[in-house]
Amino acid sequence: MQIDLNADAGESFGNWKLGRDEELFPLISSVNVACGFHAGDPLTIKRTLELARQNRVAVGAHPGFPDLVGFGRRELAATPDEVYADVLYQVGALSAFLRVAQMPLHHIKAHGALYNRATKDPETARAVAQAARDFDPAIPLVVLPNTPLEAEAQKLGLRTIAEAFPERGYSRDGRLAPRGLAGAWIHSPAEAARRAVQMVMRGEVETVDGGVVSVRCQTLCIHGDNPSAVEIAKAVREALQAEGIAIQTY
Amino acid sequence: MQIDLNADAGESFGNWKLGRDEELFPLISSVNVACGFHAGDPLTIKRTLELARQNRVAVGAHPGFPDLVGFGRRELAATPDEVYADVLYQVGALSAFLRVAQMPLHHIKAHGALYNRATKDPETARAVAQAARDFDPAIPLVVLPNTPLEAEAQKLGLRTIAEAFPERGYSRDGRLAPRGLAGAWIHSPAEAARRAVQMVMRGEVETVDGGVVSVRCQTLCIHGDNPSAVEIAKAVREALQAEGIAIQTY
Amino acid sequence: MQIDLNADAGESFGNWKLGRDEELFPLISSVNVACGFHAGDPLTIKRTLELARQNRVAVGAHPGFPDLVGFGRRELAATPDEVYADVLYQVGALSAFLRVAQMPLHHIKAHGALYNRATKDPETARAVAQAARDFDPAIPLVVLPNTPLEAEAQKLGLRTIAEAFPERGYSRDGRLAPRGLAGAWIHSPAEAARRAVQMVMRGEVETVDGGVVSVRCQTLCIHGDNPSAVEIAKAVREALQAEGIAIQTY
Amino acid sequence: MQIDLNADAGESFGNWKLGRDEELFPLISSVNVACGFHAGDPLTIKRTLELARQNRVAVGAHPGFPDLVGFGRRELAATPDEVYADVLYQVGALSAFLRVAQMPLHHIKAHGALYNRATKDPETARAVAQAARDFDPAIPLVVLPNTPLEAEAQKLGLRTIAEAFPERGYSRDGRLAPRGLAGAWIHSPAEAARRAVQMVMRGEVETVDGGVVSVRCQTLCIHGDNPSAVEIAKAVREALQAEGIAIQTY
Repeated sequence: MQIDLNADAGESFGNWKLGRDEELFPLISSVNVACGFHAGDPLTIKRTLELARQNRVAVGAHPGFPDLVGFGRRELAATPDEVYADVLYQVGALSAFLRVAQMPLHHIKAHGALYNRATKDPETARAVAQAARDFDPAIPLVVLPNTPLEAEAQKLGLRTIAEAFPERGYSRDGRLAPRGLAGAWIHSPAEAARRAVQMVMRGEVETVDGGVVSVRCQTLCIHGDNPSAVEIAKAVREALQAEGIAIQTY
Repeated sequence: MQIDLNADAGESFGNWKLGRDEELFPLISSVNVACGFHAGDPLTIKRTLELARQNRVAVGAHPGFPDLVGFGRRELAATPDEVYADVLYQVGALSAFLRVAQMPLHHIKAHGALYNRATKDPETARAVAQAARDFDPAIPLVVLPNTPLEAEAQKLGLRTIAEAFPERGYSRDGRLAPRGLAGAWIHSPAEAARRAVQMVMRGEVETVDGGVVSVRCQTLCIHGDNPSAVEIAKAVREALQAEGIAIQTY
Repeated sequence: MQIDLNADAGESFGNWKLGRDEELFPLISSVNVACGFHAGDPLTIKRTLELARQNRVAVGAHPGFPDLVGFGRRELAATPDEVYADVLYQVGALSAFLRVAQMPLHHIKAHGALYNRATKDPETARAVAQAARDFDPAIPLVVLPNTPLEAEAQKLGLRTIAEAFPERGYSRDGRLAPRGLAGAWIHSPAEAARRAVQMVMRGEVETVDGGVVSVRCQTLCIHGDNPSAVEIAKAVREALQAEGIAIQTY
Repeated sequence: MQIDLNADAGESFGNWKLGRDEELFPLISSVNVACGFHAGDPLTIKRTLELARQNRVAVGAHPGFPDLVGFGRRELAATPDEVYADVLYQVGALSAFLRVAQMPLHHIKAHGALYNRATKDPETARAVAQAARDFDPAIPLVVLPNTPLEAEAQKLGLRTIAEAFPERGYSRDGRLAPRGLAGAWIHSPAEAARRAVQMVMRGEVETVDGGVVSVRCQTLCIHGDNPSAVEIAKAVREALQAEGIAIQTY
């Protein structure tokens, strides 16, 4: 049994530092590297790839909406053409650094509000998936299962990596519970670890209203900007390994 | 005999349009496409490449300083590390669009104040050239001859394309006359055309103070944002062709 | 009888020029000046105010979403706190130039997607209105009548200026017809002029589906970025004056 | 005897936090608040003023070059017209928040590379001073003594506040030692405190090469982004108070 552990990374910008990449990278198997539109200036990208290489974590592109002040977390009514071009631009920019570092591009994962919108809106999903496929049909796209993002990626023949969130509460319909809701966030590393094991071994997780819902996952996301991200990653990693589950990319 | 005619292109940004790319592209053989930092949002890049393909012009990357409001024309005290990363980022972003369009990257040419700084400052020149070489050592760099930009590119083993400016006045030392100076700009298409022929056939040009200076050139630059850019390109093209000089990339 | 004619202005940005402010200003009585977030860099603001003074047009602030590449036309899920702060920031920035020019701030009008969102979403409307009121309760807010924007402004005790759009098609419910719809835009200056007179003299306008709807208006908006904005403004102005209606601010 | 203690503040941007404003504000008497071009988004400005009010520190505007990724620390070849408009814009934006908070604008101080350039280049200095004076001739400008910035401000009739830097090494000519030089930064809080007392009581400070140079000062600057800024501020404050020097604005 195996599972990928991913986290957002390279989310600094110029003089502003964010995240504990140095501590987090040894604990996970892949990172989603900000590409400049919501975070991640060129020098930060360069340094993040160096850190990824040292820690042998796989590097994915993490394109977001062009919204530095909002950190790409605010939905923006970009047209599908704009989304397509924005994703392609950012993936290309990151890829230049990977090329120089002789590292492969492992996956693409939309960031923040772009990811969320792509899990709800088929047009946005198709634009993201089309950009990924046009750039390189061999690169998989990280998706939330059972959403338009998964469906559109698969329609285009893209390989997908199903993602689950041990730190996030789930609704009965298998979606993430809205951020404001009680139970939407799991703060306890032990509890996140327990849920991670449940997700991987049993393919299910408890919902915020006390039920259980099935969860497909090939990767588990650790939120890197969470102040306790490192503690959660450690707990999740140890719990998974204690069950004999290998932490590794697909 | 042959010469390349190049012009900056794709210098629109979102709702703002700049340049007469549609009219200019049929007259030239290569374009320097803005990559997003001083102009050229992702959708503009995409459209510019489509236009380039239709007109069979070769596409180069035109990275600039991150200064939209200043259009990349204001010198910025970026460190060599920043210049390196900024150039690599922009070249990579453009390359993704080229890859999707199955078009090659023909050359790299620094824009505006970055170009100017690289013609004066060896550290900036080396950072630009290193980024170009690390991205792809087979891609030539457009340079102003007899400057640190040419020297550093050649030290790194990069192929260079020597550039001359039929619309710009030259000083006795072979440098471009400062923009404020009388004679710094040639406004007459006929005069620009005459100088272009002189540059290509005789390898020299008259200086602002009435002398003559030798000029090496493999490409002639037409300033696309000049209101009479199209008229100048037309005159230059016709004058060159009348002398039997082929307009084509190397 | 009197009516204000307003147009967006100062929508250039750095090297990019937009609009025909020089031709448009003599034809209208007030302008909405872009404040830097979607257009209008500081130098453009300065020059726009000089032009406004020469033409004796009243100057309003035109704050928008922070989205240069989208020109503030893409809805952004900014929180009410963010909208409040963004509006206050932009109004303050413009006001400094007015203060130096010893010109009054005549009105505030939200731009593009911010305006649209404020006509639909009471929280956004309240944030805009609160920022306007906190900055100066004596400055009126331009609103679309019968919308949350009008309602929230009036709840806060702000004076409002009701706006109508002679170039835009109206739905039977008195709202603007969606931009994609047939009839959503009136391209003929003569027709726009006819509708302007109808709006001011009879307080009504024909709808896209052949009906008539009542329209309250104290100002008529001419879209400055329309290529025929000047022709439309001229036609509207002349038609209104021919009916004895004075073109002037309240 | 009295002295002002100032520090840069409000240097966060959106999701990125910088500085220890909550701890620093109780220790100082005035703050220079970032105005959005190099740091300080609108919501950050709003929160920073609330914090300033709670701590009764005087608020100054801290306009910088438009360079988020470079934090305003990279010299930019902006023209005097651009500098003037950029400063006016930023001072105006901040002033709107002060107006709403019913707090006065205490001073203006240029940030980073703009400050540095204004201490060397009379044209930049004049542009900064002119913007300050045009906005409000009663607001003093913080200056480095014996520089073009002080001279130009005084020529325009502006009141100036002479600034000294207890954490920075000084050259024999009274200028700050270049940042790279040994001794350019004082890291020990005790040493910074000793120098602060020396500056205020004796009007002099030791130079990096072992001499002593006279220093005029009405305010001492504590670098807020220094990791030990709080410790330094505390040490400086206590040392000054121990000598009976009041920490207060002019």
